[in-house]
Amino acid sequence: MEAFFKWIKFMSKPFFYTCLSPALLNLYDVNNSTVVVIDILRATSTIATALYNGAKAVIPVDSVEKCIRLGKNMECITAGERDGKVAQGLQYGNSSFEYPRDFIAGKTLVLTTTNGTRLLHMALTKGANEIITGSFLNLSAVCDHLTKMKKNVILACAGWKDKVNIEDSLFAGAVVANIKSHFEENCDASHIAECLYRQAKDDMYEFMKANDASHYHRLIGFGLEKDIRHCFTQDLALVLPYYVDERLVVGER
Amino acid sequence: MEAFFKWIKFMSKPFFYTCLSPALLNLYDVNNSTVVVIDILRATSTIATALYNGAKAVIPVDSVEKCIRLGKNMECITAGERDGKVAQGLQYGNSSFEYPRDFIAGKTLVLTTTNGTRLLHMALTKGANEIITGSFLNLSAVCDHLTKMKKNVILACAGWKDKVNIEDSLFAGAVVANIKSHFEENCDASHIAECLYRQAKDDMYEFMKANDASHYHRLIGFGLEKDIRHCFTQDLALVLPYYVDERLVVGER
Repeated sequence: MEAFFKWIKFMSKPFFYTCLSPALLNLYDVNNSTVVVIDILRATSTIATALYNGAKAVIPVDSVEKCIRLGKNMECITAGERDGKVAQGLQYGNSSFEYPRDFIAGKTLVLTTTNGTRLLHMALTKGANEIITGSFLNLSAVCDHLTKMKKNVILACAGWKDKVNIEDSLFAGAVVANIKSHFEENCDASHIAECLYRQAKDDMYEFMKANDASHYHRLIGFGLEKDIRHCFTQDLALVLPYYVDERLVVGER
Repeated sequence: MEAFFKWIKFMSKPFFYTCLSPALLNLYDVNNSTVVVIDILRATSTIATALYNGAKAVIPVDSVEKCIRLGKNMECITAGERDGKVAQGLQYGNSSFEYPRDFIAGKTLVLTTTNGTRLLHMALTKGANEIITGSFLNLSAVCDHLTKMKKNVILACAGWKDKVNIEDSLFAGAVVANIKSHFEENCDASHIAECLYRQAKDDMYEFMKANDASHYHRLIGFGLEKDIRHCFTQDLALVLPYYVDERLVVGER
């Protein structure tokens, strides 16, 4: 009988869900799922880049003060922006381009972001025991991992101050489009995200521009067109950022 | 100077926002906006139908008990379903087809629904002072009103137990597509909803089916295909349900 139940479990597919805003996270069973934290512009894109380029770890923290304190105690690189500029007291910003291999390899980066970090800590508070981060830069690594694990998945979008945004929804849609044949689907938000992605996928930068995405405007205002284009490029940083012991490290794919 | 500010106010366009779940309503300024409550399958479709067919008023309440009590006190028709059947103690269900003109004209309907009613009461609690309800059956009446009022708009989707759903998002997208030239737009959720609507609009029933919408499955399970098709038909019940004195009545368009 036990063998039968094992067989049933082996044969049945896990579920995936898309959570379009951190304010909706409590609707999902984070304890028994892999939670994919998504903050495309730009936290989770920068995390993938730094780890791909050899960073030992990325420690995401939710305030500039904590970032400075940790930086001093652990001799790490501190980074974070507020209003498009490096935050006072920190050394670097949120752009992938600041973390090439010859600079970041072997170092630990303490990164403060608002939406992405807050979501990650919310997931921890709610009892998540497997958290990874996703971006277009490491899309295939995320999809490979989720398919291999055969666990339920929550695609958790960081959004902007709890509001739903286009770019994080687009990434959720890209994951759905890639992995759905391996999963059961019973989630309208995933269908909406996939539908959005299918309309946008040929040129996501132009889609953001044409649809007047709020974050597009914000970053263009800071002169960051190159950053946006970079964050919509697929598989440039094929690592799996995995959260363990309060830091993100390269996990097994 | 006062005339100048009046002119500026006259010339500047109001904003609209789409709130994809009741759990996100606190992110929007409901006090200074027209709130459009959207619960396509089927509360706001039934409300439009009953009022169009001459009902004096529809009183939305959040429990079967309250529905029974009000029905006795006010000699109203009581209606509401739980799990696809008329709830115990009530007289009728949630289908538009139960409210033809020769039955409902001149009567007051007390209707208990879960998601739509709860959202309407949430909006009231948060200080909304203008609430209307929207469905495809009265789409043009809603759009005409919003365009004429020149006030900020919140398209508030009832969803399903706080989860985002396809059908309410589709209606929000239809409104956006119709009114956007009269408004300023700074809302990613509205773009997402419009994008979804543009993909679905040629046959929304088939879109719900093809995209495996959760509510499609639920209602088909109760044998309600005809109801779903009806709820996606445009402008069959061109009234503006307007909330005043704890009831929805036909408002001025």
